[in-house]
Amino acid sequence: MQTIDLSSLEKEVSYNSDGLVPVIAQDAKSKAVLMMAWMNKEALGITLRTRDVTYYSRSRQKLWRKGETSGHTQTLVDAQIDCDGDTLLLLVEQIGGACHTGAPNCFFRQIKL
Amino acid sequence: MQTIDLSSLEKEVSYNSDGLVPVIAQDAKSKAVLMMAWMNKEALGITLRTRDVTYYSRSRQKLWRKGETSGHTQTLVDAQIDCDGDTLLLLVEQIGGACHTGAPNCFFRQIKL
Repeated sequence: MQTIDLSSLEKEVSYNSDGLVPVIAQDAKSKAVLMMAWMNKEALGITLRTRDVTYYSRSRQKLWRKGETSGHTQTLVDAQIDCDGDTLLLLVEQIGGACHTGAPNCFFRQIKL
Repeated sequence: MQTIDLSSLEKEVSYNSDGLVPVIAQDAKSKAVLMMAWMNKEALGITLRTRDVTYYSRSRQKLWRKGETSGHTQTLVDAQIDCDGDTLLLLVEQIGGACHTGAPNCFFRQIKL
């Protein structure tokens, strides 16, 4: 595993044309994939500084601290960036359900193969 | 876990304005998150029909059967769609490294918190 210092992180992150990067949240203990959401530069900075995972809501067009209304917060445990810098993977400690539906994670619909 | 039939899947998938949906590939055994890539409707159809995971390459603007040149294929084991239909999670059997760099997965760069 390579490591990247916070001071050199920004030049490694490849934001899309909307200034956003997709973020996968994975439960640090169970390894379940909880959800996928988006961050802008500010949300990523707050997340890394405070460890309170904070996304950017594309529908509401504003920062969204996970759990700010539900109490179902995510605390950052570990953070990884992919080979070409256009996706982040966060290992988190999830309080309550990660999904806004109340489900433990957002992937509760299985496609019948 | 709810189930969705293949016949009713298309109306559940929310493609973005480019006709693409982000797809997280997770190792079915180790639960490691391997990579994130994109599918269009055709790639998703091929993947579900053949179980050979096939993405859409945004840079090459064409279908890309994972492992077609490297041999590092992904075989679909299980597929889930998230609460609002804009992300897919595929459980796969990965042959060789999932990353084009040869690494086991694309998330080999850890951000030093």
